[in-house]
Amino acid sequence: MVTVSDRSSRGARPDTSGPLLAELLRGIGLDVGEVVLVPDEVEAVQEALRAAAREAYDLVVTTGGTGLAPRDVTPEATAPLLDRTVPGLAEALRARGADTVPTAVLSRGLVGTIGSTLVVNLPGSTGGVRDGVAVLAPVLEHALAQLRGGGDHGPPGG
Amino acid sequence: MVTVSDRSSRGARPDTSGPLLAELLRGIGLDVGEVVLVPDEVEAVQEALRAAAREAYDLVVTTGGTGLAPRDVTPEATAPLLDRTVPGLAEALRARGADTVPTAVLSRGLVGTIGSTLVVNLPGSTGGVRDGVAVLAPVLEHALAQLRGGGDHGPPGG
Amino acid sequence: MVTVSDRSSRGARPDTSGPLLAELLRGIGLDVGEVVLVPDEVEAVQEALRAAAREAYDLVVTTGGTGLAPRDVTPEATAPLLDRTVPGLAEALRARGADTVPTAVLSRGLVGTIGSTLVVNLPGSTGGVRDGVAVLAPVLEHALAQLRGGGDHGPPGG
Repeated sequence: MVTVSDRSSRGARPDTSGPLLAELLRGIGLDVGEVVLVPDEVEAVQEALRAAAREAYDLVVTTGGTGLAPRDVTPEATAPLLDRTVPGLAEALRARGADTVPTAVLSRGLVGTIGSTLVVNLPGSTGGVRDGVAVLAPVLEHALAQLRGGGDHGPPGG
Repeated sequence: MVTVSDRSSRGARPDTSGPLLAELLRGIGLDVGEVVLVPDEVEAVQEALRAAAREAYDLVVTTGGTGLAPRDVTPEATAPLLDRTVPGLAEALRARGADTVPTAVLSRGLVGTIGSTLVVNLPGSTGGVRDGVAVLAPVLEHALAQLRGGGDHGPPGG
Repeated sequence: MVTVSDRSSRGARPDTSGPLLAELLRGIGLDVGEVVLVPDEVEAVQEALRAAAREAYDLVVTTGGTGLAPRDVTPEATAPLLDRTVPGLAEALRARGADTVPTAVLSRGLVGTIGSTLVVNLPGSTGGVRDGVAVLAPVLEHALAQLRGGGDHGPPGG
């Protein structure tokens, strides 16, 4: 779990999305390992993602840095590390958010895989985090089982 | 029409999605030509797509290999062959599926063109095939007319 | 604002989408600067986009050339010029259109940024233009503020 935020990483603002994300992920039955707070910098985000993939976490969720501001670089940091993208999850995250907040369509967050680790970029807002976990919850078990090579890599995602 | 499935291609399981797909495509008025069954391997999928493009089929639909399992390589096989992608159709296929099966968002299927051939990756499930043909049916005639250079490459896709 | 159309650019047909687009953008409070009419050619579209980015317009909207016809090259012309893509806006434009016209899913239009200029490809139909402006209107102010580096590049797009 990685919070990407200049302000929070330098202590200028408490990180609210990160703790909320951890709590929500625990709420859907996940063990939440390391929680990392990094600034809006490509290198810092990539280092956190690489470390998580090395630990072979099933899932790494980032929050923050997905918008249009010049400092929003989470998608740019994530893209070159992904083996495969899962565009449908990124679409679903945006569509869900847009039901309540029109500007959710501006999130450029990616979903994809590094090895057997699923990587999800969520927006930095607490609403975006709530919507994101709500979208992930019903499909996560299936996604992770597929990534581990289980089943017949079959219906209906298959 | 290409079914991508390790199990079916080696005869370990009958291919149910392929025959259903052929039946549904005939049901919307198409002449279904060759039906090919290949294993989940990039080379095999690409060979089948290249053969179909050489035959100048209007439409090639694949079923299977679009999920997250390590052996799911249909999008990876398809991507480098496409001249242009049609992301809106891929989005619509996933959105339609998700109304009934949440995990439909995990399908990584692509839609695009090779020359004037429209290529569509559908999931391997019979439900995914049904949803896919339902999404294609109302737009297919318009899409194929545009690809053949007809009309004013005009509204509303234009 | 760029209308991309062979017929209109050579005077064979009046450009109806361009004037409508200008009127609608003014209607949501924007100052509309240059209005350019170019043929369906990669070079011509790129020249118009580059000129607009040099002028540091906040927003450049193109209309036309997003379909599947061989001459539809607006996305191909736009893609290499973009610093970043904003896939969610492109998805929202298609989804909105599809509520009224099924073939809206065939639009391959991109949304992205060149420097701090937001670039939006709309379809060439008047319906596509209307739907497009309706989708842009509620998020445009937020998007442009983010691009200018304002705010905390924060919620909810952030």
